[in-house]
Amino acid sequence: MVNPGNVVIGQSGGPTAVINQTLIGVVKAALAEPKYFRKVYGAIHGIQGIIDENFCDFALEDPANLEVIAGTPSAALKSVRLKPTPEVCSQVLERFKQHDVRFFFYIGGNDTAETAHIINEMAAQDGYALTCMHCPKTIDNDLRVTDHCPGYGSAAKFVAQAFMGDNLDNRSMGGIKINVVMGRNAGWLTAASALARIFPDDGPHLIYCPESDFSMPQFGGDVLKVYQRLGRCVIALSEGIHGIGGADIVDLGETDSHGNKQLSGSGALGDYVAAQLKSFLGRAQPGAKHRIRADTFGYLQRCFPGVTSEVDAAEARLAGTAAVAAALAGSTSGSIAFRRTGEGEQYGIDTFVTPLRSVAKETKAMPRDWLNAAGNDVVEDRLMPYLRPLVGRLPAIGRLAMKGAKQA
Amino acid sequence: MVNPGNVVIGQSGGPTAVINQTLIGVVKAALAEPKYFRKVYGAIHGIQGIIDENFCDFALEDPANLEVIAGTPSAALKSVRLKPTPEVCSQVLERFKQHDVRFFFYIGGNDTAETAHIINEMAAQDGYALTCMHCPKTIDNDLRVTDHCPGYGSAAKFVAQAFMGDNLDNRSMGGIKINVVMGRNAGWLTAASALARIFPDDGPHLIYCPESDFSMPQFGGDVLKVYQRLGRCVIALSEGIHGIGGADIVDLGETDSHGNKQLSGSGALGDYVAAQLKSFLGRAQPGAKHRIRADTFGYLQRCFPGVTSEVDAAEARLAGTAAVAAALAGSTSGSIAFRRTGEGEQYGIDTFVTPLRSVAKETKAMPRDWLNAAGNDVVEDRLMPYLRPLVGRLPAIGRLAMKGAKQA
Repeated sequence: MVNPGNVVIGQSGGPTAVINQTLIGVVKAALAEPKYFRKVYGAIHGIQGIIDENFCDFALEDPANLEVIAGTPSAALKSVRLKPTPEVCSQVLERFKQHDVRFFFYIGGNDTAETAHIINEMAAQDGYALTCMHCPKTIDNDLRVTDHCPGYGSAAKFVAQAFMGDNLDNRSMGGIKINVVMGRNAGWLTAASALARIFPDDGPHLIYCPESDFSMPQFGGDVLKVYQRLGRCVIALSEGIHGIGGADIVDLGETDSHGNKQLSGSGALGDYVAAQLKSFLGRAQPGAKHRIRADTFGYLQRCFPGVTSEVDAAEARLAGTAAVAAALAGSTSGSIAFRRTGEGEQYGIDTFVTPLRSVAKETKAMPRDWLNAAGNDVVEDRLMPYLRPLVGRLPAIGRLAMKGAKQA
Repeated sequence: MVNPGNVVIGQSGGPTAVINQTLIGVVKAALAEPKYFRKVYGAIHGIQGIIDENFCDFALEDPANLEVIAGTPSAALKSVRLKPTPEVCSQVLERFKQHDVRFFFYIGGNDTAETAHIINEMAAQDGYALTCMHCPKTIDNDLRVTDHCPGYGSAAKFVAQAFMGDNLDNRSMGGIKINVVMGRNAGWLTAASALARIFPDDGPHLIYCPESDFSMPQFGGDVLKVYQRLGRCVIALSEGIHGIGGADIVDLGETDSHGNKQLSGSGALGDYVAAQLKSFLGRAQPGAKHRIRADTFGYLQRCFPGVTSEVDAAEARLAGTAAVAAALAGSTSGSIAFRRTGEGEQYGIDTFVTPLRSVAKETKAMPRDWLNAAGNDVVEDRLMPYLRPLVGRLPAIGRLAMKGAKQA
């Protein structure tokens, strides 16, 4: 028996290209059940908006426009990075009581699940009936329990297409190219660069993820070997790479309210590694001129419009719909998770509810054995069956047969 | 009366997303006239491939695959950055004589036109009948004479979509975001960021191009004003910005064989400007915490597959076809240029041949009055009618009305 009441929906953490699919999934499903969900509010800037009583009313939105918003990247309700201190969470709960909010849908990553979890526990202690559902999103794909995360497929598609283009660029121009990919704790997104490989000599030729310790001398040797073979080398480097014991490669300083270090929004890591590589190769091949370039994909990876995975978009919508369905079915807290029901052509998922604490705070790395022993590439046989269905179709890439050429 | 002979096609300089449309345009048109074009060769790595006699034979390519290649970004014949010294050019001419090459189609930018021009002059002096046609390409859109350049529309589309996504990201998260856009001498590509503006408060809020001198104090003041008004600011910064008299903002060292400085493939400019801005804002608003991030779009801008302008692709094909038609019509040298035949809904182009020397070496900046007097934005009324038809449709972007909210 579900007690009726008002609904608050919020979005939190770094945005994705499909985070509004989840939002509109929740909104439409909630608006469809006015018997249980009386008012459907959007909190602007997540818990900050709740504290400030900055709510919009979804009943007043143009229904046709909601579908345009679903297809628009980045949090339409705006996001927040506010540490869920006891004071903050008790203020949120106070607002919920004042506005008879009985359902809280919070779309975000592990920090967001943590916030929902704290508020949920607080409400239970107070004896205030509140349903707290977390809807997963993260381009990092590092939430626990779920098979994969909404937002990842689209970011992975962007990374794959970026490497496709960059591999072609590098093939035509030669030289060494380092591309730094997002992913603080896990190499999921960096690993997706392997989708760019169509022909046997295509890059990325080397892939470095945080699941394996990074060593500059090994890296230099790896690049040299590829460069000597092909005259070029494309490298996918996770922004989360670290030395033994998690040691920083380069200290970037700034941290956010959750204690996370600033990794993106700076070219520092790529430039540092490029400079180190230049002096390594200069010593290894004295007199040779090495053209080394580093690009840091940065924020483009998470919100690029027009490069969205259709599967990801549909699943993100489902995460929202399923959260409302779970609340209607009597769940009072939890996070929506995906389970695969088939592989390859039979790929499909269903959803289930996992406890908030099971996804809060901690993250999930890629299995170490999805990387090779040297830690400089993925194991395609393990990664690709998992990854391909999430990304879907990629652009067709052709090359000339170059018959008659001395050296193709 | 056209003398029959063999054909060499090459690609040179930085690649674009549609440079193979031009290639396949030349190839198909040439293969269709075997009476005049006996063998149709591709030079692998441009003039380097000619010197090395590294030719592929297009008659041996699978015709169906040629269309896949046309849709594939980056030079399918591979590119080259070799300075066209007299020695180099006379070696090229020597090879042409050895292989009875009477038609040279060279696809590239102003440096490429210069190379074709030198070879053409040399052949004339020798009394060797050689037709040298230059087919334009450059994402920088900075070739003289032509209305616009193949490759620009697709790169502009990428930049527009990147800014659309990044503006949405910034709107949800707040803070200050600097995006560094390619364009050594001209702001055409940076200016295309203005296409990302859909709603009145959308970024980029400030646009800086090399057509106007850049001053750090003015920049700091500009950003502060936007930030105080919106709580956020998205900035488009050309990699080619410079101080008064062309002074470097930050010295990046390395130069290529044409004496061009390395601008891309490093986050140095963005990181430097971000750091300077941070200290400026720290002085202007003591105690306030400014979240400043810089992304450098880098090489992604020029070869991203799947984000191609349809108009650009069709026009790039036309540039190739027109070059062959011009050679058949008796042109013995020249560069293909575009002339607009209509604006807006009536947009269209036709092609004409301009002398090689008219596009060689020098580049064309944006008209200064397409930027505002302060040099911190474009003049949309002037830019947009020119730009929109080249880019075509962009993804639909929606936002919530946020009715009922205290602060939307």
